[in-house]
Amino acid sequence: MSQTKKRQLRLAAFLSGIGANVQAWRHPDTASNSPVSIEAFIEAARLAEKGKFDFGFIADSTFITRDSTPYFLSRLEPITALSAVAATTTHLGLVGTMTTSFSEPFTTARQLASLDKLSGGRAAWNAVTGALEGHARNHGGEKLYEHSLRYRIADEYIQVVKGLWDSWEDDAFVRNKQTGQYVDLDKMHTLNHKGEFFGVQGPLNMERSPQGRPIVFQAGASEEGRDLAAREADAIFSGSVEDVPAAKAYYQDIKRRAAAYGRAADEILIFPSITVVVGDTEQEARRKYDEVSQLLDVNVAIKYLSRYFSFFDFSQFPLDEPLPDLGDIGKDSFKSTAEHYKRKARENNWSLRQLALYASNPSDQFVGTPVQIADRLQQLFEDEVVDGFILHAYLQPRGLEDFVDKVVPLLQQRGLFRTEYEAATLRGNLGLPYPVNRYVQQQDATKALAA
Amino acid sequence: MSQTKKRQLRLAAFLSGIGANVQAWRHPDTASNSPVSIEAFIEAARLAEKGKFDFGFIADSTFITRDSTPYFLSRLEPITALSAVAATTTHLGLVGTMTTSFSEPFTTARQLASLDKLSGGRAAWNAVTGALEGHARNHGGEKLYEHSLRYRIADEYIQVVKGLWDSWEDDAFVRNKQTGQYVDLDKMHTLNHKGEFFGVQGPLNMERSPQGRPIVFQAGASEEGRDLAAREADAIFSGSVEDVPAAKAYYQDIKRRAAAYGRAADEILIFPSITVVVGDTEQEARRKYDEVSQLLDVNVAIKYLSRYFSFFDFSQFPLDEPLPDLGDIGKDSFKSTAEHYKRKARENNWSLRQLALYASNPSDQFVGTPVQIADRLQQLFEDEVVDGFILHAYLQPRGLEDFVDKVVPLLQQRGLFRTEYEAATLRGNLGLPYPVNRYVQQQDATKALAA
Repeated sequence: MSQTKKRQLRLAAFLSGIGANVQAWRHPDTASNSPVSIEAFIEAARLAEKGKFDFGFIADSTFITRDSTPYFLSRLEPITALSAVAATTTHLGLVGTMTTSFSEPFTTARQLASLDKLSGGRAAWNAVTGALEGHARNHGGEKLYEHSLRYRIADEYIQVVKGLWDSWEDDAFVRNKQTGQYVDLDKMHTLNHKGEFFGVQGPLNMERSPQGRPIVFQAGASEEGRDLAAREADAIFSGSVEDVPAAKAYYQDIKRRAAAYGRAADEILIFPSITVVVGDTEQEARRKYDEVSQLLDVNVAIKYLSRYFSFFDFSQFPLDEPLPDLGDIGKDSFKSTAEHYKRKARENNWSLRQLALYASNPSDQFVGTPVQIADRLQQLFEDEVVDGFILHAYLQPRGLEDFVDKVVPLLQQRGLFRTEYEAATLRGNLGLPYPVNRYVQQQDATKALAA
Repeated sequence: MSQTKKRQLRLAAFLSGIGANVQAWRHPDTASNSPVSIEAFIEAARLAEKGKFDFGFIADSTFITRDSTPYFLSRLEPITALSAVAATTTHLGLVGTMTTSFSEPFTTARQLASLDKLSGGRAAWNAVTGALEGHARNHGGEKLYEHSLRYRIADEYIQVVKGLWDSWEDDAFVRNKQTGQYVDLDKMHTLNHKGEFFGVQGPLNMERSPQGRPIVFQAGASEEGRDLAAREADAIFSGSVEDVPAAKAYYQDIKRRAAAYGRAADEILIFPSITVVVGDTEQEARRKYDEVSQLLDVNVAIKYLSRYFSFFDFSQFPLDEPLPDLGDIGKDSFKSTAEHYKRKARENNWSLRQLALYASNPSDQFVGTPVQIADRLQQLFEDEVVDGFILHAYLQPRGLEDFVDKVVPLLQQRGLFRTEYEAATLRGNLGLPYPVNRYVQQQDATKALAA
């Protein structure tokens, strides 16, 4: 019997939002208040669970200006929304974005551990460094730290959070009514962290969950981001798969970096976000895609674009002439996304209008019939370009509904995707190894040395 | 027709915990893991909602040591637990404790506003300053700020949070699919706070909820705490009503201070926590009370007591001789509680054992038949000693179940308590005035001046 686990496709969905296009809220079939409607989040989560998806994902950001596009202005905060979703689902993983800038690692560790406990081991943390200048101004600062410093802070922050999640061994809480023993204090551990950026004593006042500790996602695509992810993350929220060779190179690079840290290829999973539009015919799919694309207003699209360049004022450029070189604007903000947009504009000699519409509307890479979509997803998975996909519906809830009803059954028939959940925890469903408590590891190592 | 609103009794319940006695977890009828069981929180919330209670309350603290008693070692974090409860209830108010020390006002404002939005206007914040030395050591510090500085910080913090909650006027979000207008930017306001302790630009990325903004609770009993509460709080989580004249003096003092700030008596509501044990006969009630009291171990009780004195080591005193004067220990921690315990010990010439058991077990003030309990509650309410009560069940869920089934109907028959919720929001049910957005107030004032 072979010991090799067969690679399994993973599926996930954005729970928030009104659609991948920034003006999809205008479509008659979508609730225009979805970003603040917990009913919409719960509906998306239940659809995802019906489809046996691995997890629901909530992105985040906080800084807004008069130029922010609709989606950003008012939105549910991830940890509250996921806790509400937890109470109304049973198997879906719950991935929330929380920043490592301008927050306290003790509080972040605690809220995630509490979500993990109350959901029965389904929580995950998408750790981001925060990318907008204005973020600092909501937290007593004036400027964002520069890119590489943000990553050094994030690194130490993640170490602290994981350390706090090991405050208790798995079986520390005895709760024996007969003997009166509530806890085994030998299984309580105090972190006593004193680092460059943080001082955190511990222990955390939360026992471990059935999955040991929450899963960690990272989204960085820069050199620093890749290295941190390869070392610390269980999963990566990666960029677009529009450029397949580039996505494959990224995939291989991450797995290679992880191997250098002694990790197996299946201990770090890579998930791009994609937008799927399904039709019974190619024509129907294309019509649905166009129907939403046409809602876009170029002025709103330019505002959306400028967010990725620290709210750079694009109005100085004519709408329909080729864009000049954009230099290094955006280098300390959403670095990789800004670079991607600059490269696309340069390579295609795009005008401002073309770049803005490109940035504000999902690509048409996954527009087609159920069989066409299933074929493309299968190919990207089998070619090791991705480990799975996070669906950003082109319209909520229709985009997800169509996918669950029409594409998931095909993926199941092909033996690519589960027909039932394998486990009650997110870690179990993702097939990730159980994280042995660091203090138990140390004790085991000491014992082995002594033997 | 009279314009005077009849005073209405308010009822609430602690959602967390295994019982008011620190060792109630050993009782056969209670789930020993209640502090980390969201099912237990939800069960308590549903019972409270069945009883038409105004709100459920979650207390909090984070710093633990080897000497912490069971309840503190591992517990759900309030904002996550309340969000899960929100998704499984429809009318119950949701009061969460969050500290103004070692946290970011923007994040606190946002999480509470998000809970408020997703619950349809049922959130409240119990703002505390944090009272344990070790709290600082989990957040990069060494020592807690001294008591009055903590209150100055809390004061500015609450101002910032309320300011952020006014970032948007009530009707700022238009979301008109026909015209394409998502928001009216004239109704967006930027706080631009630069104070002694905090710099927060804003706006908050969350629109107002149906109750305008979350309710604010305060729990301080010191001079600084009373003044802050009288000025800023909608409600107070007050101390014990064991000493009725002292509780009445407190009630009058708070209402007098509020009046000095131009507030009506019914704009600030006072809620002590009480433990009720109901029996069909007096004997049965006493038997139930004794059954739980007997679970107490004096060593655990001493550990519990020491927490209110910054983990002072009481083992230096003999168990059964009168305690010496305790001097000023505890003055920078749970100041008012420590003072209360010292006074009780002095007045009664108590031994360490007596004081520890007193601190660790609820008083027997509300042990009796349903009629006896209803009589006592009615008296305290009508004598203006309290505006309502927060029930800390002697056993979860039995204590709450008994009260809802046997005492609530009596209070309803007497016309003291509602038989149906009056409103969908916590503010509406508590009869508190709607908070007009500060920027609208300013505009109205300017218009009045011009007219």
